[in-house]
Amino acid sequence: MSTEHRQAKDYLARILEAHSLEDLNARLAPSPEPMPARLPRDPRLTPGAVDKRWAVLASGDEGKDLLLDPQTQALMERYQRNIENFVGTVKVPVGIAGPLRVNGLFAKGDYYVPLATSEAALVASYHRGAQLISRAGGCSAMLLNEGVGRAPAFAFRNLREAGRFVAWAVQQFEAFRAVAEATTRHGELSDLRLTVEGNHVYLLLEYHTGDASGQNMVTLATDAVVEHILASSPVKPQYHFVEANLSGDKKASAQSFQSVRGKKVTAEVELPAALVEQVLHTTGQRMTEYWRMSALGGVMSGTLGVQGHYANGLAALYIACGQDAACVAESAVGVTRFELTPQGGLYASVTLPNLMVGTVGGGTGLPSQRACLEILGVAGPGHARALAEVCAALSLAGELSIIGALCAGHFARAHRQLARG
Amino acid sequence: MSTEHRQAKDYLARILEAHSLEDLNARLAPSPEPMPARLPRDPRLTPGAVDKRWAVLASGDEGKDLLLDPQTQALMERYQRNIENFVGTVKVPVGIAGPLRVNGLFAKGDYYVPLATSEAALVASYHRGAQLISRAGGCSAMLLNEGVGRAPAFAFRNLREAGRFVAWAVQQFEAFRAVAEATTRHGELSDLRLTVEGNHVYLLLEYHTGDASGQNMVTLATDAVVEHILASSPVKPQYHFVEANLSGDKKASAQSFQSVRGKKVTAEVELPAALVEQVLHTTGQRMTEYWRMSALGGVMSGTLGVQGHYANGLAALYIACGQDAACVAESAVGVTRFELTPQGGLYASVTLPNLMVGTVGGGTGLPSQRACLEILGVAGPGHARALAEVCAALSLAGELSIIGALCAGHFARAHRQLARG
Amino acid sequence: MSTEHRQAKDYLARILEAHSLEDLNARLAPSPEPMPARLPRDPRLTPGAVDKRWAVLASGDEGKDLLLDPQTQALMERYQRNIENFVGTVKVPVGIAGPLRVNGLFAKGDYYVPLATSEAALVASYHRGAQLISRAGGCSAMLLNEGVGRAPAFAFRNLREAGRFVAWAVQQFEAFRAVAEATTRHGELSDLRLTVEGNHVYLLLEYHTGDASGQNMVTLATDAVVEHILASSPVKPQYHFVEANLSGDKKASAQSFQSVRGKKVTAEVELPAALVEQVLHTTGQRMTEYWRMSALGGVMSGTLGVQGHYANGLAALYIACGQDAACVAESAVGVTRFELTPQGGLYASVTLPNLMVGTVGGGTGLPSQRACLEILGVAGPGHARALAEVCAALSLAGELSIIGALCAGHFARAHRQLARG
Amino acid sequence: MSTEHRQAKDYLARILEAHSLEDLNARLAPSPEPMPARLPRDPRLTPGAVDKRWAVLASGDEGKDLLLDPQTQALMERYQRNIENFVGTVKVPVGIAGPLRVNGLFAKGDYYVPLATSEAALVASYHRGAQLISRAGGCSAMLLNEGVGRAPAFAFRNLREAGRFVAWAVQQFEAFRAVAEATTRHGELSDLRLTVEGNHVYLLLEYHTGDASGQNMVTLATDAVVEHILASSPVKPQYHFVEANLSGDKKASAQSFQSVRGKKVTAEVELPAALVEQVLHTTGQRMTEYWRMSALGGVMSGTLGVQGHYANGLAALYIACGQDAACVAESAVGVTRFELTPQGGLYASVTLPNLMVGTVGGGTGLPSQRACLEILGVAGPGHARALAEVCAALSLAGELSIIGALCAGHFARAHRQLARG
Repeated sequence: MSTEHRQAKDYLARILEAHSLEDLNARLAPSPEPMPARLPRDPRLTPGAVDKRWAVLASGDEGKDLLLDPQTQALMERYQRNIENFVGTVKVPVGIAGPLRVNGLFAKGDYYVPLATSEAALVASYHRGAQLISRAGGCSAMLLNEGVGRAPAFAFRNLREAGRFVAWAVQQFEAFRAVAEATTRHGELSDLRLTVEGNHVYLLLEYHTGDASGQNMVTLATDAVVEHILASSPVKPQYHFVEANLSGDKKASAQSFQSVRGKKVTAEVELPAALVEQVLHTTGQRMTEYWRMSALGGVMSGTLGVQGHYANGLAALYIACGQDAACVAESAVGVTRFELTPQGGLYASVTLPNLMVGTVGGGTGLPSQRACLEILGVAGPGHARALAEVCAALSLAGELSIIGALCAGHFARAHRQLARG
Repeated sequence: MSTEHRQAKDYLARILEAHSLEDLNARLAPSPEPMPARLPRDPRLTPGAVDKRWAVLASGDEGKDLLLDPQTQALMERYQRNIENFVGTVKVPVGIAGPLRVNGLFAKGDYYVPLATSEAALVASYHRGAQLISRAGGCSAMLLNEGVGRAPAFAFRNLREAGRFVAWAVQQFEAFRAVAEATTRHGELSDLRLTVEGNHVYLLLEYHTGDASGQNMVTLATDAVVEHILASSPVKPQYHFVEANLSGDKKASAQSFQSVRGKKVTAEVELPAALVEQVLHTTGQRMTEYWRMSALGGVMSGTLGVQGHYANGLAALYIACGQDAACVAESAVGVTRFELTPQGGLYASVTLPNLMVGTVGGGTGLPSQRACLEILGVAGPGHARALAEVCAALSLAGELSIIGALCAGHFARAHRQLARG
Repeated sequence: MSTEHRQAKDYLARILEAHSLEDLNARLAPSPEPMPARLPRDPRLTPGAVDKRWAVLASGDEGKDLLLDPQTQALMERYQRNIENFVGTVKVPVGIAGPLRVNGLFAKGDYYVPLATSEAALVASYHRGAQLISRAGGCSAMLLNEGVGRAPAFAFRNLREAGRFVAWAVQQFEAFRAVAEATTRHGELSDLRLTVEGNHVYLLLEYHTGDASGQNMVTLATDAVVEHILASSPVKPQYHFVEANLSGDKKASAQSFQSVRGKKVTAEVELPAALVEQVLHTTGQRMTEYWRMSALGGVMSGTLGVQGHYANGLAALYIACGQDAACVAESAVGVTRFELTPQGGLYASVTLPNLMVGTVGGGTGLPSQRACLEILGVAGPGHARALAEVCAALSLAGELSIIGALCAGHFARAHRQLARG
Repeated sequence: MSTEHRQAKDYLARILEAHSLEDLNARLAPSPEPMPARLPRDPRLTPGAVDKRWAVLASGDEGKDLLLDPQTQALMERYQRNIENFVGTVKVPVGIAGPLRVNGLFAKGDYYVPLATSEAALVASYHRGAQLISRAGGCSAMLLNEGVGRAPAFAFRNLREAGRFVAWAVQQFEAFRAVAEATTRHGELSDLRLTVEGNHVYLLLEYHTGDASGQNMVTLATDAVVEHILASSPVKPQYHFVEANLSGDKKASAQSFQSVRGKKVTAEVELPAALVEQVLHTTGQRMTEYWRMSALGGVMSGTLGVQGHYANGLAALYIACGQDAACVAESAVGVTRFELTPQGGLYASVTLPNLMVGTVGGGTGLPSQRACLEILGVAGPGHARALAEVCAALSLAGELSIIGALCAGHFARAHRQLARG
């Protein structure tokens, strides 16, 4: 977290242009001033509550009209289980990439992929990658595993008690499963891992969550398991928590490469040399040189996995399709690989260990999000695995397109044209 | 990226319930079938083009009405430099957390924070944290440094040529600066770092980007520097790329703890014991126990930094306020620290090294996004640093609230009530 | 891997003091000069071969006398299966830390720990920690798991073939076990993990290796499994390797926190306040402050795990006791935790996931190494698990002592006195 | 740090074969038994003290004869500033790899490299790699940067005080330098970095240490700077430590890729196809396939950098040459790269950011260690940079040889033959 002293000095000089050090220091002190108007206490969504909130916000009528447009007003109650302190909706522009041909275990066909973003060139770049893949007959995609975990933890007096707890807990998988599954229709406890660190014991409970992304489901199930443990364990913890930050929730973690967090998918495509040249205006040779150099760039910058920009496509698809956008933090890691084939073509693959996606629950039922899932053809039960494979295929399209642009020297130009008009 | 063989076997058995292995294998082959209807070639946003795209999508009229509502139609041209292949907008519900009192170098006052999310309990949780902080007189916040980098790379025939290039390049900072700054009104080249790996040389050009997040700006400036290098360097590279994945763009990287990526901010608050008890229904003691256990949980799961769920608040604020949501991948890392004070209160701090935020450019000028920035009070030039400090304060609110819920045993209950009604 | 340009420029200026750039450049070119005298072709250890090697080395007689002292000459043949191109022995001074009382599942008693190092203050520091632990009745230690892996990898034409291979391989655990165990008396195949990355499949074969560290054993067993796979698999790889760098061999890896590499051990001790003060001249309060600050120091510097200096004690014990010293790279990671107890005492624990130790095979049978194992009381079969627990206890002693010195302000002083006399 | 529940259950079953759970539990309790004989209080090295220590150790006369052989007895006083509680020396067999031709900025010539190890096949493998490199005219090697850091840390009451401290400290580089350099003849303070994390401030002081590895030197200099800070800073810390675990001392850290820890060196060689085939019995094509697969193996296992087994050669050279063997933990990281050249040859490079080596101080003056440095031709002042370049060249030799063996299918065979005779 360090800054070189000369850089820190420059920065200090810049901020002291406007304020003295004393002044800056004074600004940081806690302030006893009275608070401005508070929001109404009840966070729920009712038309009256929305108006009361707007009355508090100093923002003008224009803002209210933009967030609380007629459609949003008309559909307001559809949002009530997804938001608190509601004041309207933000409109994120949606563009289509595709059709993207995916030959997967679960996704099979040609997908029009809705991407919600405000970043110029993003949709154009993924669209180009999708066309490239489709012209090669599509990419193969394979869901490799699935599951979501929660990690309760227990603190004991000492290692002896921790040891006795572990000796008991390793025998309880079936009991935990029964307790967990009593809380959910679709969830199944699929695995249990144990971590001992001194007198602390972390459990990692892994679940199958059907077509839901499943984070609430596993929280409630784990809460029940924890209650069961407190009631049944031969040794009582000093204290415990239902989640102790070992599950990788909402953050990139090296662990997720080994255990399960969401859906693990790999996708590949083999492109003839002529197609690379025609669509990307570069060669497979050049793209493998880029891959090698950028893989080591990633390694030397200390990333988890090596890849280019999975986050771009995933964030845009997650927002469009009502997924949990915060999960981009954990989903946007993995491994991209490019190779020259013996025939001079380009082999490209991506592998993403942590796609947190679902087609039921969360934001998937919201009106425009549901419409996007329908454009994609994966709305509702039975489609979560296909959605995960589409995410991998989309990531592959994005890697091919951006690396093609970097190799052809078009990267800056594309941004200049699309963002500046 | 591994899976235990018994788990892999279980998974295989599950997927073979519906399909034979041969069938699954066949599904993965590239498909020669003709492609379905293609989108119009021109990606630009005009009313005619939008209609043509909808004609291609098999999705029904209802979807079109939801994405292309009257307001979106009316404001359509406002989106034209932010999206390609436009078909409408997705509506993400926005709730308000706050007022959140921030005592920062740049942010000073009480902020109503718009958060766009479809995850139940998220706004309620941040709102509670904001109230807690505000009741303590607000949190201190301090921007520590700022900058954004691009990392072009050059491949040479051998180490000798790489060495000659480096010996030249270390003398060129002023020349690079002149070239870079000729491309931009607001950008400044602030630093240059060099990496030699065998016969490869990566440069890391670091810029100040004013109130813009700045990713396009630094791409165009770096492109000019690269052209200058190719024209001026005494030794020519075999090949080169304007970005070789060493800049940390769109991914969490350990490097960003040392160098600069966006804005580095720290925020802290000291809470009296009574306030912790009253608002969070737990004690500072319990919260520091949680902190210790969860910090090691993060460490043992192999995260970069240790924190709880920065991604939740940041993704919601980024979407509401027209930031690049994909940058959640790199922004949602950092360090949370909780300590018991000698008086029995709770000291809490967060430090985020990579906040990629801006108040001009990108999506900040889109209608509803601009409205959200106005609610927050940071729209337009002169506010990017304040926005970064608000992001840190929001992250602090989120950590306090979620950890409070985990300590009080309310975590599962809150999700049950708000998500299931 | 980057260097700031001003620092790079300073460095360049320094090295150009002695040589011109051209001269430096010329030095780096491959040199066609004839090679000097070569060593005899046969690498084996015989008295004649040793003399011939010394005849080649330009080094004087004094060096030969120091490396090839009478004892080394007398015992020379004892080294013949442990070294090639033998010219003598290097003498590393050995000091004793202890007795160190360990209350472990396998180690039970008071251990005199031989440490081979040339770093002043190291033995004194561990000795102090050992005394501290012993005066508290000893530390508890618990072996948590054990195993060693090898990771062969297979490249297929495409994902379909990779998938068919995996579908076959997940069924073969018992077959692989039979093949592997036919190659070894003590090794057992205990687990199998599979990783698919595009058209590549890595297997991670995990073994129990009895009292040997086991790296050769698992290589030979895995070689046999690979031969079996090539003969039996329904789909043939394009190419394969018996180890593809996924096993964590000879390097710190985040993976080893989740899978198995050597022996996982945890150790703890609870120290009364008076003892901390008496032996370390500081307080538990201060030591927990240090722990918190240093844990975050480790996190912010991007280490795997958080600890102080496990490497010091482990390297010294590994060298003294004939362990594979290169395995310090993977063994010296883990988690140290310090807490204040409700009684004002200090709770301290260490957890090390990767102790690569054995009491048979490798260097454990060499004369002076065997003598050190006997001093420690763990020579020969039946003692590897105890040795691992002693390693953890030693690491705990080292953490307590160095942190005590840092807290009491004695750290620099101790180095000054012991190293400078 | 987790273990799958079935594996944990198997492990538990295995350990319960010998002991009951109650029995195991009882073993872990602190033991009040009287301690056995203690070592003499005075840790210094005198003949009388050595005898008294042996009298305490239960070990027989044979052990004493092996550790305290006539040569060790004769040279005993040479060890007195390098060890405490001395009882003798452990003899580690030394083999020679080379001559290894190095064309470096500082190392120039043909080096016979002494390697101390008890692992069969290690010397033979490095020797083969050295021959390969030498036959190609030697490798190029380039020292890229150098320095060693210490990281004192300071805790303040709040962020305001931390900010005032930083604003002062960024101005003090010259003052700190004067204070630091007054403590040392050869050390120079070269850089200062600052880290703010809430109300904590870490400084990272970077030094040049001449030909010494320099860890003691930088500790003493930093201790003086800390004293100066306490006396001069306008704001006093609540507490402070001379090192707070941010320097990367004795552990692999991602940070060291960006900052400085020891010596950063890169080395490369280009091998004609015929030479690869003749010496390694494989092809460049095969070796680049291995490189790609193993680089991703490293990435997916979560290593810092990607490389094969730097630790093997470095540990052996460090032990032979009186380096601090514990520093293998931080030195054995980096990046290996293999590429096919347009001519069908093999390009190979290694880059190591953290070589902690010196040719004066530490163990470099011990008798047999000094002899090894003389065989290598780098004993005494003026040679540390050359030693670092030799370390990189040796690492390159090791990577080429082991990967060659893995590609030719000889890896297991070599271990079988050399270790089992």
